[in-house]
Amino acid sequence: MNEIAKPLARYAAYRRAGDYIFLSGIIAVDPARKLIVQGFDDIPPQAAAAIGATGEFSTDFKQGPILAQSWYVLDRVRQTVEAAGGGMADVVKLVQYFTNLDHFPLYSKVRGMFFPGEAPASTVVGVSGLMPSSAVLVEVEATVYLPRVSV
Amino acid sequence: MNEIAKPLARYAAYRRAGDYIFLSGIIAVDPARKLIVQGFDDIPPQAAAAIGATGEFSTDFKQGPILAQSWYVLDRVRQTVEAAGGGMADVVKLVQYFTNLDHFPLYSKVRGMFFPGEAPASTVVGVSGLMPSSAVLVEVEATVYLPRVSV
Amino acid sequence: MNEIAKPLARYAAYRRAGDYIFLSGIIAVDPARKLIVQGFDDIPPQAAAAIGATGEFSTDFKQGPILAQSWYVLDRVRQTVEAAGGGMADVVKLVQYFTNLDHFPLYSKVRGMFFPGEAPASTVVGVSGLMPSSAVLVEVEATVYLPRVSV
Amino acid sequence: MNEIAKPLARYAAYRRAGDYIFLSGIIAVDPARKLIVQGFDDIPPQAAAAIGATGEFSTDFKQGPILAQSWYVLDRVRQTVEAAGGGMADVVKLVQYFTNLDHFPLYSKVRGMFFPGEAPASTVVGVSGLMPSSAVLVEVEATVYLPRVSV
Amino acid sequence: MNEIAKPLARYAAYRRAGDYIFLSGIIAVDPARKLIVQGFDDIPPQAAAAIGATGEFSTDFKQGPILAQSWYVLDRVRQTVEAAGGGMADVVKLVQYFTNLDHFPLYSKVRGMFFPGEAPASTVVGVSGLMPSSAVLVEVEATVYLPRVSV
Amino acid sequence: MNEIAKPLARYAAYRRAGDYIFLSGIIAVDPARKLIVQGFDDIPPQAAAAIGATGEFSTDFKQGPILAQSWYVLDRVRQTVEAAGGGMADVVKLVQYFTNLDHFPLYSKVRGMFFPGEAPASTVVGVSGLMPSSAVLVEVEATVYLPRVSV
Amino acid sequence: MNEIAKPLARYAAYRRAGDYIFLSGIIAVDPARKLIVQGFDDIPPQAAAAIGATGEFSTDFKQGPILAQSWYVLDRVRQTVEAAGGGMADVVKLVQYFTNLDHFPLYSKVRGMFFPGEAPASTVVGVSGLMPSSAVLVEVEATVYLPRVSV
Amino acid sequence: MNEIAKPLARYAAYRRAGDYIFLSGIIAVDPARKLIVQGFDDIPPQAAAAIGATGEFSTDFKQGPILAQSWYVLDRVRQTVEAAGGGMADVVKLVQYFTNLDHFPLYSKVRGMFFPGEAPASTVVGVSGLMPSSAVLVEVEATVYLPRVSV
Amino acid sequence: MNEIAKPLARYAAYRRAGDYIFLSGIIAVDPARKLIVQGFDDIPPQAAAAIGATGEFSTDFKQGPILAQSWYVLDRVRQTVEAAGGGMADVVKLVQYFTNLDHFPLYSKVRGMFFPGEAPASTVVGVSGLMPSSAVLVEVEATVYLPRVSV
Amino acid sequence: MNEIAKPLARYAAYRRAGDYIFLSGIIAVDPARKLIVQGFDDIPPQAAAAIGATGEFSTDFKQGPILAQSWYVLDRVRQTVEAAGGGMADVVKLVQYFTNLDHFPLYSKVRGMFFPGEAPASTVVGVSGLMPSSAVLVEVEATVYLPRVSV
Amino acid sequence: MNEIAKPLARYAAYRRAGDYIFLSGIIAVDPARKLIVQGFDDIPPQAAAAIGATGEFSTDFKQGPILAQSWYVLDRVRQTVEAAGGGMADVVKLVQYFTNLDHFPLYSKVRGMFFPGEAPASTVVGVSGLMPSSAVLVEVEATVYLPRVSV
Amino acid sequence: MNEIAKPLARYAAYRRAGDYIFLSGIIAVDPARKLIVQGFDDIPPQAAAAIGATGEFSTDFKQGPILAQSWYVLDRVRQTVEAAGGGMADVVKLVQYFTNLDHFPLYSKVRGMFFPGEAPASTVVGVSGLMPSSAVLVEVEATVYLPRVSV
Repeated sequence: MNEIAKPLARYAAYRRAGDYIFLSGIIAVDPARKLIVQGFDDIPPQAAAAIGATGEFSTDFKQGPILAQSWYVLDRVRQTVEAAGGGMADVVKLVQYFTNLDHFPLYSKVRGMFFPGEAPASTVVGVSGLMPSSAVLVEVEATVYLPRVSV
Repeated sequence: MNEIAKPLARYAAYRRAGDYIFLSGIIAVDPARKLIVQGFDDIPPQAAAAIGATGEFSTDFKQGPILAQSWYVLDRVRQTVEAAGGGMADVVKLVQYFTNLDHFPLYSKVRGMFFPGEAPASTVVGVSGLMPSSAVLVEVEATVYLPRVSV
Repeated sequence: MNEIAKPLARYAAYRRAGDYIFLSGIIAVDPARKLIVQGFDDIPPQAAAAIGATGEFSTDFKQGPILAQSWYVLDRVRQTVEAAGGGMADVVKLVQYFTNLDHFPLYSKVRGMFFPGEAPASTVVGVSGLMPSSAVLVEVEATVYLPRVSV
Repeated sequence: MNEIAKPLARYAAYRRAGDYIFLSGIIAVDPARKLIVQGFDDIPPQAAAAIGATGEFSTDFKQGPILAQSWYVLDRVRQTVEAAGGGMADVVKLVQYFTNLDHFPLYSKVRGMFFPGEAPASTVVGVSGLMPSSAVLVEVEATVYLPRVSV
Repeated sequence: MNEIAKPLARYAAYRRAGDYIFLSGIIAVDPARKLIVQGFDDIPPQAAAAIGATGEFSTDFKQGPILAQSWYVLDRVRQTVEAAGGGMADVVKLVQYFTNLDHFPLYSKVRGMFFPGEAPASTVVGVSGLMPSSAVLVEVEATVYLPRVSV
Repeated sequence: MNEIAKPLARYAAYRRAGDYIFLSGIIAVDPARKLIVQGFDDIPPQAAAAIGATGEFSTDFKQGPILAQSWYVLDRVRQTVEAAGGGMADVVKLVQYFTNLDHFPLYSKVRGMFFPGEAPASTVVGVSGLMPSSAVLVEVEATVYLPRVSV
Repeated sequence: MNEIAKPLARYAAYRRAGDYIFLSGIIAVDPARKLIVQGFDDIPPQAAAAIGATGEFSTDFKQGPILAQSWYVLDRVRQTVEAAGGGMADVVKLVQYFTNLDHFPLYSKVRGMFFPGEAPASTVVGVSGLMPSSAVLVEVEATVYLPRVSV
Repeated sequence: MNEIAKPLARYAAYRRAGDYIFLSGIIAVDPARKLIVQGFDDIPPQAAAAIGATGEFSTDFKQGPILAQSWYVLDRVRQTVEAAGGGMADVVKLVQYFTNLDHFPLYSKVRGMFFPGEAPASTVVGVSGLMPSSAVLVEVEATVYLPRVSV
Repeated sequence: MNEIAKPLARYAAYRRAGDYIFLSGIIAVDPARKLIVQGFDDIPPQAAAAIGATGEFSTDFKQGPILAQSWYVLDRVRQTVEAAGGGMADVVKLVQYFTNLDHFPLYSKVRGMFFPGEAPASTVVGVSGLMPSSAVLVEVEATVYLPRVSV
Repeated sequence: MNEIAKPLARYAAYRRAGDYIFLSGIIAVDPARKLIVQGFDDIPPQAAAAIGATGEFSTDFKQGPILAQSWYVLDRVRQTVEAAGGGMADVVKLVQYFTNLDHFPLYSKVRGMFFPGEAPASTVVGVSGLMPSSAVLVEVEATVYLPRVSV
Repeated sequence: MNEIAKPLARYAAYRRAGDYIFLSGIIAVDPARKLIVQGFDDIPPQAAAAIGATGEFSTDFKQGPILAQSWYVLDRVRQTVEAAGGGMADVVKLVQYFTNLDHFPLYSKVRGMFFPGEAPASTVVGVSGLMPSSAVLVEVEATVYLPRVSV
Repeated sequence: MNEIAKPLARYAAYRRAGDYIFLSGIIAVDPARKLIVQGFDDIPPQAAAAIGATGEFSTDFKQGPILAQSWYVLDRVRQTVEAAGGGMADVVKLVQYFTNLDHFPLYSKVRGMFFPGEAPASTVVGVSGLMPSSAVLVEVEATVYLPRVSV
């Protein structure tokens, strides 16, 4: 079952405006569990395996946080878009914020799995911080084009 | 009387494109007075009272800058949208940049007053600096959906 | 001959969605030459002259990097928009990221040459880093309004 | 039932000397549970609600630590004073140490609830650290005037 | 005419408890004028002359802030003690907080003028910050012994 | 023979006020020898042995400064209290300032030797600096309750 | 029962080569429990008592991490050497890496318990980091001389 | 009317020695007004226009301080030299100190206006600070050759 | 053809001592070409492909330096060991120094290719710098067990 | 007896050239005693008294280093000029380098004693360091005008 | 053939004024080649050999930059002085700026070769930066005394 | 007379194991004199002269510490090896730790004097600190091959 990304404060998870859907910036936080995703243990095992968990403590300790957050965030994008009636192919633009740009190659590998077809336009910048704490490594803002079906 | 946010350099305060209006990023600067809003004294007294001025020197000195800037920026968003013929309910997306993310809760409280109804999609990031100086604490970029009335 | 900005990774240089074109964030990197633009020597001489090369070593050494990157990035925006069938007047919004906001006045002077007519809405923020290295000083993300011609 | 603040090391929670009671500096640490108070979850729900928990993840994540520690510390002051036979009105001086002075307004709001009547003399300073770790944000030292009842 | 140091927030300027008077920590802030004392221009000219204003721009610019704050703070101590019916000779303890300990010799010279007779016990520490901003360089907390006159 | 802590500047080593004695903050400085205590060599050998000198160069080099300063400061407290006619059991409150809070456990061990009986109330804070130089690691301010003997 | 130090990645816990056994660098990480030892609670109570747990919250909070890691690491060295058929007396060289050299005296005290007889040659250096995170305070690499028994 | 640069402390604005005139280092401070030049508003409007004021808030805010200080300092050099009976062509050497060497190209453009003829020998260095505060961005020391007229 | 790692200064590339061979620490520097390996372009294309070159500019720019240096260093270890008559299986211990421990997972992946069989004992530490410049990211020191063939 | 400032390395203490004498930069180092002047104890007692030694440990500890170095350096200038046959009135220019510009007012007070008559032209800059160590706080370079007596 | 140091911007390489020649500050930059001297490869081989090139990669990599720049700068001084008709013996004063004062001993050794006879007066300071980039390590300003030959 | 390097704590100066001797890491500390070698004055004059003492204060002040420590440490290696019955030619491996890698060339020059013949294998790394204080600049760990003489 899908679950759209719930807002962490008083704002909309997404807003439709005409043929476009604007998603709020999504981070790897589960407000229901009051949990910030911090590693492979916080995402489903199949997902962890798919995105590169090695089972070696040191490597997973180092790469787990960004890989798991990348998966979580993009999966929330997917759920939210599907809840709105679309699919990942309808995502036309991504703005991606990182607290450490060295994380980009790992994020990029995960993103490739979510966009097997035509990729969206993309902007990547390094920022000095993300909400609500320094444990959050990446935030993704998506714009979706999903024309209303006219009758 | 309303006054749209005037650009600080050679760019448009907003651009209409089809059914959308794109606002430039707005900061708490009044180019006419060459003033960067720095506290409750730089905004109308009723506004200061509404957003939490306590009259205690220490508290107002600490919280005044971000509260006053938050009010000023969102009020400029409101004025600009109204100048374009819309209202705050037509704002569909906000991107909000902070130089100190600890300011978010205070900004968030002010924002709630400007969006009593449906809230826009929202992205929040911490940045290393804003124009034109470090006295600027928050910048807000708004996207508005305001379909042209066809005849 | 024009050349659209090629993506540096697996993403689209731009995506059309309805009447809008979303460009990926553009930086002064030429992936074909594996080159990050670092000064006047990396752009055509006429461009260098037009944007303020002085021929004095010290001045050009200091201002060359941001001036040359500004020209390169905006010229890529231009090429990409033209490849999509539009022109600079169709650019309705720019988000501009700087690693050093003191660079803004020099960028602004160059931008003025690319937008002699109506200027786009504009947002400027200082970020902690840009891809792929600290040699990159500015990134520009453009949104274009280019209605499809209906028959 | 009240519980006086237990010392974390080999010192007295408070010492009576003539008509005065000197409390040791109190921090938001519960040595029994080996717990440093870090948010609303570590204090009673009614207390959290009273001092401003919003239920919004981002805001509570940011403001929860200092609000909860402020409540905990002042409540311990209260318990200790009451254990000695007095009340908050008998507290005549407070020295308050903060690791981040931006926390003062939030602390001040909580303090106001504990001293509805005559307020004590007060000193506030920003320090470089508090025991036993950087998770401790505030320490409060109270002096109480509680004349012995003579017969 | 004297003026006791007014509290900047909700606390007492001083509290009598038995034979002792506890002053709140005093900083060089005039809440009425919303002014932080920043140099010789913010104190009476005779005071400036007495504590070492030279009339040379560079020297006064460097030493003026701490000299003027030292005078202002100690003068407020004096006014407050006198308002309580005592004098500087009744001050028995001072705790003095500095944001820069290199300021101590200049403060010490000024303090000598306020305590021509028996000096109080004294503690000096360097702190990471004082309320409400980094412009505040020194805070002084005084304890006064002023036995009630019994009949 | 005892020697009370001499003030390093123009202030009282201690002041009696009613039944209380307020000691100035004491640091491990011997103004007669113009010496800042920096290790076991600066205190009596028996004291060094008692507080944990190992004779191993590396360990003593690391732990010597704080251990020796702790002993020196507390011994000065003792001498001063005894000069006033009291004893360590009359010390009712200590405020202890450290430039490095990791030193606390070593100081605490030494303090335990000076207060074999009832311990005083205690406050511990980390400060950004102590007078007169960064070689000073700890400052202790003591309050003593020593009722005058009435006839 | 003993348990040799398991490698955290793809390498050997130890390698015998001729008469020597080379141990991999050992840190206080238990890959089975995915646990980094962070204090007395992560090691057996008798061990904690033996190496100096005081039961005072502040002291144990400060010294617990390095004491517990020191014990854990050296106990793993012991287990590994014993698994190879030798004992601590066969350890001929230790290289010890610390992220904070002020920890050395505490480590040294623990090491003395593991080597009651002839001590190994020893090298101590301060490093900028250890795997897999900054919570790891010490790493020990041991070389063992354990001649094969010839027949 | 000209005004020679007045010294900020007890030293000569310039000293003639034989055929040479040595100017003290000049900074953009007006001791009469107790003013540090901080932007275009602190210099005559014509001067501001001549050296590049754009009227755009952001650009002028960024470039105004160094451009205005450059003009002020060089104009003071001119006034001082003229007061001594010479002209800018008699300046034979300049030593120029900057707190931020990125300011050099802007200073250099202004300097070119003051020396339309033969330029002086020139040294440029970046320094860690200038008197009396960090608001001072550039200091210029000039040596003038102005042979005495013999009869 | 193999080439043993040549020393960069006056020391031996390796020394045999009894049955062991001690290799000097190896870094990714080719003294013949006066080249520090900085990316995939500095190693053979097949090697680059084998260790993960993607052809995407941004990813390769980020991960290329450590991947290429890892390959180069381990290949030099291989060449040196083979020059001494052995093979990678004879390497019994590695000490690996990193200037950034986040590089470990990438290095570890490459190392796995060089040691398909039994792995050596391994120590990993983060250091503050490597010779001759900060462009060097990893240094590897190997110990080899290669018993002399007796006749 | 006077002693000219001896160079610390292979350069001239001063060079006459025509009517001018150029002194090397002078610092408060006595190469004969291999001593860097660090306080009042390193200069003659009368000099210490004249420039402001108070006899209070804390104040002298803080201000002694710069006051004593200022006296030493200017006294060496005096000795050197006198050795060349001139006097302080012949000094026409001083360039003064400080590692901490807050030291200027204290230096300035001392300089006033050495130049009771006409003062030289003066330049003051803050530098990042002076030879040979950070204990050196000020360096003074003097230019002297001392016309040769013609016959 | 000699080549005088060409200015990098609009200023004179040197200016004669009476019997003196003032050279502009010289850095190791060749504006013709747009080259900053960075090591032995950028100067003639004989010069490299003379000033201490060892042929060992690590040592030359570390010491090459300052040695080569020292030679280049002093050689330019020599060429410029000779072009003016003088020689190194006519240089009467040097002001030398370093970005790292640890470079002084290496510079000093090279300087000794250029001034075999009487040495000039000399001032050495550490600065925070030199033009045009941090690759420039030393700047030298020379004053030459070269009386005009009268007829 | 030789003196083997005495351990600074409870460990062996060296351990023989089979045909190898493992030396503990050696630093330039003389535990008997409680002295850290800090310059040429702390080593024999002939040694100082041999390794490059110039007699110029500034140069020796800068280079003396690392040159003297290098000599001291390697001389201790020599003494220790000779005490074990071997010579420098038997040293087969050195691991060398520096707190500042710019010191390497000076160390390397000294090392060359101690190993006129075949050099040992060598590893060089920069570390964040060495025991017992930051005055220690280099640590050397040696491995010696010295087969037992069989009968």
